[in-house]
Amino acid sequence: MKIELRPIGIVHSPYKDKGDVPCCQKDRLEGIGEIEIYEEYADGLKDVEGFSHLIIVFIFHRSEGYSLHVKPYLDNKLRGVFVTRHPNRPNPLGLCIVELIERKGNRLRIKGLDMLDGTPIVDIKPYTHYDAKKNIKIGWLEGRARALEEIDQS
Amino acid sequence: MKIELRPIGIVHSPYKDKGDVPCCQKDRLEGIGEIEIYEEYADGLKDVEGFSHLIIVFIFHRSEGYSLHVKPYLDNKLRGVFVTRHPNRPNPLGLCIVELIERKGNRLRIKGLDMLDGTPIVDIKPYTHYDAKKNIKIGWLEGRARALEEIDQS
Repeated sequence: MKIELRPIGIVHSPYKDKGDVPCCQKDRLEGIGEIEIYEEYADGLKDVEGFSHLIIVFIFHRSEGYSLHVKPYLDNKLRGVFVTRHPNRPNPLGLCIVELIERKGNRLRIKGLDMLDGTPIVDIKPYTHYDAKKNIKIGWLEGRARALEEIDQS
Repeated sequence: MKIELRPIGIVHSPYKDKGDVPCCQKDRLEGIGEIEIYEEYADGLKDVEGFSHLIIVFIFHRSEGYSLHVKPYLDNKLRGVFVTRHPNRPNPLGLCIVELIERKGNRLRIKGLDMLDGTPIVDIKPYTHYDAKKNIKIGWLEGRARALEEIDQS
């Protein structure tokens, strides 16, 4: 079974290359950019103005192939790719939950993006209270969270 | 530009048909099922045990075509498909954030699924504190949340 996706839009981002994306999540959450939905899909944005947060599903268009074990940023061990957000995945899908600042026609101004400029978008979904989980445990990422805090404080 | 996806696994769910999925989100959050990751991808689950919640990206394999305006459950107006989780989307991708109960080899026992039995999985991602947003506004869904509360209380 194969499933074929087509982009519904494209990201306009201040991050032109991987090195431009801030390493601290805190800084990423401040990043502002735009999503342009192609005219033929723009009607699907009806009623989007009432939402504060959206889930963006995109393609890691610069990823080449995949590994099942990857070495994440700020970690010195190999981790299963499905417990990372690494771009080199069996299916090169990315996901980012962003704040919606403003809609202008087929363009959404968003905050908190970590996508590169030119990233193809394949879906947008509303973020709801049911997606905001409590009592979260993040396994190996605990160590990285501590490392990032040290960077933030230095 | 076209992107081709291949399933990495399959859902084993108590919901065999659309009508079996509970209408109340509260009941959905209690639903228990399993995700079977195909052997060739199972190594990508390394370290998954430490996580309490996972983001599952799947294919709406029973969806046929799409509309940009859809009529959601318990709503009497047409809404933009990108502010709904309706299955008939330009790209038939679904998303569900579930609780991880237990891992046994290439099988994940999960809680809170709303996927149908036999649903193809295309990605799994870790859910982190950054995905748990605050001060959420959900536009037209406010009305449905109230309607569901009425059902819950009746």
